Amino acid sequence: MKDKQKIQDESSSQNGTLIDEEKTEDIAEQIQDLVEKDNQPAAIKLFSQLRPGDQGEVMEDLPLDTQQEILTALPPEEAAEILEHLEPKDAAEVIEGVDSSVLSDILDEADSDVAADILRQLPEEHALDVIGEMEEAAEVIPVLQYADDTAGGRMVVEYVSVKDDATAADALEMLRQQEPEQVKDIRSVFVTDAEGRLAGELSIARLALAKPKTMVRNIMETDIVSVKVDTNQEECARVMERYNIDELPVVDAVGHLVGVIMSEDIIDVIEEEATEDIYKMAGIPGERVFGSLFLSMRNRLPWLSINLVTTFLAALVISIFESTIAQLVTLAVFLPIVAGQGGIGGTQTLTLVVRSIALGEISKKGGFRLLRREVTLGLIHGLLLGVVVGLIAYIWKGNYMLGLVLGMAMVGNMIIAGLSGAGIPLILTRLRVDPAVASAVIVTTCTDVIGFFLFLGLATALVTFLV
Amino acid sequence: MKDKQKIQDESSSQNGTLIDEEKTEDIAEQIQDLVEKDNQPAAIKLFSQLRPGDQGEVMEDLPLDTQQEILTALPPEEAAEILEHLEPKDAAEVIEGVDSSVLSDILDEADSDVAADILRQLPEEHALDVIGEMEEAAEVIPVLQYADDTAGGRMVVEYVSVKDDATAADALEMLRQQEPEQVKDIRSVFVTDAEGRLAGELSIARLALAKPKTMVRNIMETDIVSVKVDTNQEECARVMERYNIDELPVVDAVGHLVGVIMSEDIIDVIEEEATEDIYKMAGIPGERVFGSLFLSMRNRLPWLSINLVTTFLAALVISIFESTIAQLVTLAVFLPIVAGQGGIGGTQTLTLVVRSIALGEISKKGGFRLLRREVTLGLIHGLLLGVVVGLIAYIWKGNYMLGLVLGMAMVGNMIIAGLSGAGIPLILTRLRVDPAVASAVIVTTCTDVIGFFLFLGLATALVTFLV
Repeated sequence: MKDKQKIQDESSSQNGTLIDEEKTEDIAEQIQDLVEKDNQPAAIKLFSQLRPGDQGEVMEDLPLDTQQEILTALPPEEAAEILEHLEPKDAAEVIEGVDSSVLSDILDEADSDVAADILRQLPEEHALDVIGEMEEAAEVIPVLQYADDTAGGRMVVEYVSVKDDATAADALEMLRQQEPEQVKDIRSVFVTDAEGRLAGELSIARLALAKPKTMVRNIMETDIVSVKVDTNQEECARVMERYNIDELPVVDAVGHLVGVIMSEDIIDVIEEEATEDIYKMAGIPGERVFGSLFLSMRNRLPWLSINLVTTFLAALVISIFESTIAQLVTLAVFLPIVAGQGGIGGTQTLTLVVRSIALGEISKKGGFRLLRREVTLGLIHGLLLGVVVGLIAYIWKGNYMLGLVLGMAMVGNMIIAGLSGAGIPLILTRLRVDPAVASAVIVTTCTDVIGFFLFLGLATALVTFLV
Repeated sequence: MKDKQKIQDESSSQNGTLIDEEKTEDIAEQIQDLVEKDNQPAAIKLFSQLRPGDQGEVMEDLPLDTQQEILTALPPEEAAEILEHLEPKDAAEVIEGVDSSVLSDILDEADSDVAADILRQLPEEHALDVIGEMEEAAEVIPVLQYADDTAGGRMVVEYVSVKDDATAADALEMLRQQEPEQVKDIRSVFVTDAEGRLAGELSIARLALAKPKTMVRNIMETDIVSVKVDTNQEECARVMERYNIDELPVVDAVGHLVGVIMSEDIIDVIEEEATEDIYKMAGIPGERVFGSLFLSMRNRLPWLSINLVTTFLAALVISIFESTIAQLVTLAVFLPIVAGQGGIGGTQTLTLVVRSIALGEISKKGGFRLLRREVTLGLIHGLLLGVVVGLIAYIWKGNYMLGLVLGMAMVGNMIIAGLSGAGIPLILTRLRVDPAVASAVIVTTCTDVIGFFLFLGLATALVTFLV
């Protein structure tokens, strides 16, 4: 305990500041040095002084073989806590080489959602071996049945429930039978009816204050929100957020309580989902900052390739008007302006709409309102920008007709930006295509292709006044 | 209770599915109809049957005067719960017109962080009036001292603490003295030393099982993480996530416990911060999906204007090479390709780096590694895309030199994309400028300007071989 305090003082984590990436890397280096000098005990001692959350971070900075060495050297319950703080993929990587019997001991100590997450990442045969050797297999198997992005996959089965004809004393007795390690994390006792269906919830605080002979059904909360096992994790997060729930009960098709989702576990979900949405919009789904180069290429090349097709579409539009450009080369100078502003405006609208869809803020009726709103905004922005751009072009090149053509094209393209920026994600959502993935490329294709077409088309139509 | 059940059955919220936007709008319309038919009691009855979280959503779909009518007609504790589920800005809008004495009653019932949030949004004089009439002013004033995006502004002061020489029975007695409404949300008792400094934490579950005469100091958890009052809310969220904390104690400069942050409150923070980051990157900071048109213009025009400057920079580069384009108009056709691919590649890198910085995944040393990595990726992507683009140009226009120039420019610009996409947010972070805000425009300026310059510059240098 004293050692732990020391490290926290050094890193100022004692007053809550996170051990930052710098410090994490330092510690990882010290540990690696010790391992390379064959001083494993010192390495493990240094590692053990960290909090589990920090251990997870340090782990990520260590070579894989050192990670495995440390993990297998620690007592199973400590190893389990570290795994809970790693990303499931990282955790699976570390434990791939670990012997089934050691691994089953570790997973026995882990929360059921974490154990299930890790088992899902293992090759099937290895996973079956491990489950076969686990003592707590009965707890992890129900969670394993469900996809990891559903309530069933996110729940833990370590909860306390009593029948509704139990007394407060009975409920306390149930609590007493839990493992001492787990008791401190329990906030509520769930109450089920005679058929095992979820009937109510009783906070430990109320329970602690109740007279021993009180029936739990008389002091429990009955207006409780639950989710089904197959509810998507994003939906679970939104339910917990909207109703301020810190332990969300999960029920099966007939209403039997099967698990609980903890609010601190859902924080990860929200952060992951936000990151996923951000990355999908930029065409880097599943990217990780220090992943392998090959993986990054595989993530990014499809997006670059699709966009290459669309820029060639734009090039094709320009090539249609090559003869006009030949008559007035200055037109080439202004090509980036109409398309560029359209792209920016379209992206602004798109970002707003995609994020709002993700947050569940747009209804079907709202969609039309939004479309009208964004087209209006596009018109206003187009008029403002059109006047400015037209004036600059006129002053710069001394050609008022050029300014007019540019201004008109700008108005048109900003309307297209609003229309496509709002319309495309809304249409994709109706078609049940994820708007975060496909919208950006379609919208910029619209603003590029139509932008060039409007500008060069108008110039061609009015070419006699232009040159 | 029965009515509540009915609405939940209808909306299938009983099994946890959220009342969706469609349903929310329906209910809002029904309520508005009733209000317009002067049947306020029925409107309020219908509204009261909803859960507070859903009431917040329905509120947002109602006209402001109906919102005020409902809020003032409800008992203060119900009104307070609704305010907790509204965005602070919306909440302030609703209550602006509400009489100070009514408002003070409502805020007395609200959590201290919510009350403080709302008071911050009110005009100062009005806020002071309300505080003057509040009975629980002493609870909200400490929270008001701190900025709303810090631990101090996010904490609630409704927590239970005991001295470390107290017994379990004493702690239970403290719990008993809390308002019955609040007891159910309490998960831990915090323990302070003789000087009032935070010394430990005791979960209610452990307390409930402890023998009455046990000293809390003997059963409390001493290795606890806390944050200072001025810690940024994002940092708090990360601490809670990393260490799986569901009640994070907040201490002042000398270590006195002053408040607690609840994990369900931090879910909002993470969702807000993610949205903010996404919107900042697209140049729509503070945008809301159905805000006023004027507000949207004020949000988006600065970004459109800054980008206008940068596209004119790009136009300027093209205009330098006008005479080259006059010699080979086909060059104009390929203008969007080099700049466009550079822009896409730069945005991919940028998005990854900005998000990873926001998630605290990049150290100083990591920065260099990242830069090297992204430049390497840029080179590889540039070579691949360069060959493809060069070949297409050669086949399309029958000019192998054009293909070569295009290919070389592509390689160069993809390297620039990697360099600027990673380098600019890293530099901005060092300069303590928010990389989410300024990076995108600088990166696309780089890829546009340098892309055009490379392509047209190479073409000019090799113009004798091109035409």
